[in-house]
Amino acid sequence: MNETKKPFVLISNDDGVYASGLQALIEIIRPFAEILVVAPLEGQSGMSHAITVKSPLHIKSIKKETDLEVFAVNGTPVDCVKIAINQIITKKPDVILSGINHGTNSSVSVFYSGTMGAAMEGCLNGIPSAGFSLDDYSQEADFSPVNSYVLDIFNILLQKKLPENVCLNVNFPAKRKIEGLKITRQAQGRWVEKFIEWKHPHSGKYFWLAGDFVNFEPTATDTDEWAIKNGFVSVLPLKVDITDYKAIDILKNSFSQ
Amino acid sequence: MNETKKPFVLISNDDGVYASGLQALIEIIRPFAEILVVAPLEGQSGMSHAITVKSPLHIKSIKKETDLEVFAVNGTPVDCVKIAINQIITKKPDVILSGINHGTNSSVSVFYSGTMGAAMEGCLNGIPSAGFSLDDYSQEADFSPVNSYVLDIFNILLQKKLPENVCLNVNFPAKRKIEGLKITRQAQGRWVEKFIEWKHPHSGKYFWLAGDFVNFEPTATDTDEWAIKNGFVSVLPLKVDITDYKAIDILKNSFSQ
Repeated sequence: MNETKKPFVLISNDDGVYASGLQALIEIIRPFAEILVVAPLEGQSGMSHAITVKSPLHIKSIKKETDLEVFAVNGTPVDCVKIAINQIITKKPDVILSGINHGTNSSVSVFYSGTMGAAMEGCLNGIPSAGFSLDDYSQEADFSPVNSYVLDIFNILLQKKLPENVCLNVNFPAKRKIEGLKITRQAQGRWVEKFIEWKHPHSGKYFWLAGDFVNFEPTATDTDEWAIKNGFVSVLPLKVDITDYKAIDILKNSFSQ
Repeated sequence: MNETKKPFVLISNDDGVYASGLQALIEIIRPFAEILVVAPLEGQSGMSHAITVKSPLHIKSIKKETDLEVFAVNGTPVDCVKIAINQIITKKPDVILSGINHGTNSSVSVFYSGTMGAAMEGCLNGIPSAGFSLDDYSQEADFSPVNSYVLDIFNILLQKKLPENVCLNVNFPAKRKIEGLKITRQAQGRWVEKFIEWKHPHSGKYFWLAGDFVNFEPTATDTDEWAIKNGFVSVLPLKVDITDYKAIDILKNSFSQ
């Protein structure tokens, strides 16, 4: 890594080091930063905040250019952030970015998302962080309409405008012409699973996890789901202290302390 | 499953279907409930809220007795809850319990914990849920001191005393004589990783993820860390809407909308 005065940015993702969304994010940020990429060797969709404790991790050098170094790790997105901070680099990143994910991560999907796992891990380490997702699963997705929004959010993180325990979940609509940007909250909803059942040729049945997201408040206009469906960028602040402080009083009344 | 008037309880864990902590939880609840256990076939520590999307799931029947049926699934704790609710059973559980985990899940460790992944998945499905952990990693750990506390918490869940989007993270100290129970909040802190480096006999280096938890507020007496370290049961309400509503205003001021 060269020592420059540019901000130092760690980038990861969950679609893996060769995903086109990762490449798009690198290209948007590259003119303005020194970049270290540490991304999973293979796709890690749905890996949430998982860490690898039962098998060892390998670090593979992929690319080394001026102000850009790329490594792949045979682990989860959170593994990538941890091994980057603690093993690969000695200086603290100014900002951690994750994505751009192929597919949205809105409402309760933040809990399953490897993209947001990496961003929240950055935040847990006291580093301004954001995860980016686009409502398009295709490897040929067009990321160009989101460039200026990514840079705006990057600048907000660089300027440390948010409290230390807050990270950003940013979702982009798959539109050539974006309507604008909304600050949102998580839509109330849930995934309703439909397991796909097949017969194994040798031993019984097996199941594929599949399902549909159901939005419990489709008419509320301040949610992430509404923004994305209506062509807006959704910017949602997530906290990493998930204690329910209101419920503490309910519990104190329930137990005789 | 027999139709009885006892409450119907789904139990899972992350240490796997053969863990002694799971057996302890079954034995505590069994006199008072009809129980379905759907637990991972193998240990799933650190799997967080991960779901299995790249490989199929198999359901293996382990045991069928009066008011107790046990299945193992080759997936994560969250997979177990999803496949239980959507594939194995047709009626909704009254309560979902996860654990008893071997080792604590306090402070930021809830993000990495498979035990809490299962409990939070229950909560996301609108079912009163709790995860239990004991500060003892041994398979020979003594779970008997926690019996009455588990039952107290089970009753609070049954009586639906908590809002729908709140689940409980319960941690027990490894003490023969427990000092009492505290309603707590997440301690501020983080894991500081120390990757263990070894040389591969054939190809370069590899790394094991390891580290220590650092409590940033060791003297605060209202945290989960303090309670466990001082011999108390820690009962902590966690929310599954993790939007930071205060940060929404900061962001609205940062963007020109």
